[in-house]
Amino acid sequence: MDIADHKEAFSKHVYALQEEICKELKRIDPSIVITEDNWKREDFKGNEGGGGRTRAITGKFIENAGVNCSTIYGELDPKFASSLNTGSTEIWATGISLIIHPYNPKCPTVHANFRLIQSGEKFWLGGGADLTPYYPYENDFVDFHNTWAKACEPYGVYNDFKKTCDEYFVNYHRDDEMRGIGGIFFDHFNSGDFDKDVEMSISISKAFIASYFPILERRLNEAYNEADEDFQLHRRGRYVEFNLLHDRGTIFGLKTKGRTSSILISLPGRCKFTYEYAPVPGSPHEKMMAYYRPKDWLGKL
Amino acid sequence: MDIADHKEAFSKHVYALQEEICKELKRIDPSIVITEDNWKREDFKGNEGGGGRTRAITGKFIENAGVNCSTIYGELDPKFASSLNTGSTEIWATGISLIIHPYNPKCPTVHANFRLIQSGEKFWLGGGADLTPYYPYENDFVDFHNTWAKACEPYGVYNDFKKTCDEYFVNYHRDDEMRGIGGIFFDHFNSGDFDKDVEMSISISKAFIASYFPILERRLNEAYNEADEDFQLHRRGRYVEFNLLHDRGTIFGLKTKGRTSSILISLPGRCKFTYEYAPVPGSPHEKMMAYYRPKDWLGKL
Repeated sequence: MDIADHKEAFSKHVYALQEEICKELKRIDPSIVITEDNWKREDFKGNEGGGGRTRAITGKFIENAGVNCSTIYGELDPKFASSLNTGSTEIWATGISLIIHPYNPKCPTVHANFRLIQSGEKFWLGGGADLTPYYPYENDFVDFHNTWAKACEPYGVYNDFKKTCDEYFVNYHRDDEMRGIGGIFFDHFNSGDFDKDVEMSISISKAFIASYFPILERRLNEAYNEADEDFQLHRRGRYVEFNLLHDRGTIFGLKTKGRTSSILISLPGRCKFTYEYAPVPGSPHEKMMAYYRPKDWLGKL
Repeated sequence: MDIADHKEAFSKHVYALQEEICKELKRIDPSIVITEDNWKREDFKGNEGGGGRTRAITGKFIENAGVNCSTIYGELDPKFASSLNTGSTEIWATGISLIIHPYNPKCPTVHANFRLIQSGEKFWLGGGADLTPYYPYENDFVDFHNTWAKACEPYGVYNDFKKTCDEYFVNYHRDDEMRGIGGIFFDHFNSGDFDKDVEMSISISKAFIASYFPILERRLNEAYNEADEDFQLHRRGRYVEFNLLHDRGTIFGLKTKGRTSSILISLPGRCKFTYEYAPVPGSPHEKMMAYYRPKDWLGKL
């Protein structure tokens, strides 16, 4: 396949994955309402620059979710283009980006994205998925990592991608606390064999449904108390801190005049900030705090 | 007075102002609990680097407030120092920074800070105060601006400082919405007459109590409904966006390894984010939205 075919195939794939994920969400929470916004953008020179399909979701169990696709292209702001260091001022990018914030604090928040980018002669892939739980259900964390490890196995990339994830989703200003319990993450990926890389990205991305929805389903109706919710809201506060202070995707999106509503759909519905917040000693929440650190969830790293 | 005397006088002043503001808060909400943290810091080379007195406040009427002072000095990270462009790698800075988030959405949030900074041969002053109301009580906004205009009058700086404020507290990623209704702001201020500049900063800062507490007091017991609170929580979400994405003070503080808890004390207790949030057409909240734009509150600019 040549590059043009890969671009088309990848774009087709992410839009199909969006459809599939929304269907699965609807199956688990039939009350959800999906607001779909199809948007177009102009490039830096005012020419047609592609667009996207944003789906904002709320329901009885889902406080807020965003499952977004886009395919954008055209001229970049030259200042920003030079920071990409590709020798070109043009870009072509397609991808899916999603976030799910359930109400129940026993259900983890999940984020994933998969993208293909071309600028000048350079092509690369990026993406991954990471879990942000609020309750110390260790078997959920093992299941999540296991699913991604299995998806990565044919390509021998789990250990690398897991490490990159542990190093990326970190609130460096909060004593190096991670946003959650990690997952996998890769960026600027190009092994030299683009056919293989695209096949790998598509294949790995298909693990999303198996990695998250079984966990969501089994926790959806669990009882929780005020302390569970208070902890969740404070951790969501840390989620906001990460996304606005450190997340390259968010800052890239806002700096390139992306669609603000679609980018900041990642923020949680409700959240809380308290000076020197700390969970009650001896509580499950205090136990959970210790898990926001790099950890070998498969016992075989 | 020589520079050393000015530094000492300014530092003494901000610590006294902290005391006075906390006393006033206690008078208005006698239920408040003040958590005081006296902290020390090391400079970039690990030498003694000053410290501060953080006061975190909550009460029946005050959801969260921070009234913080610090005096810090010593070596900077050379990378950061070069961005200051003072020809020196050393800094000396003292100041007060405060934020008050009341529960009642009829009471505005307020922020203020006043600081004196020296690096090498350069000295400058900075600071200001801005109001973030959630209900269209226009007379409150006029009163706030009037108080600051009066304080600035002897120095002829209100128009300049008001404009700088209108241009600074802006969420550029949200269609240039302001965080609130402005106030005054100045930065890197040095007119060449440092005696006069210090006298001006101290004199202006003394207007804080008159600018805010009468408004707080008259709105404290007003009734409010769920829609008022929902609007407030969403605007607080925008407050978080501004502070983490755009506020130079926050980013400066975190980049120079400042005390995270003291810096992020500015974030509101509770807040909310909703995809494409908009207030109900015809509501007071929709009316309020139109005020988050530069406006001549004194009718004489």
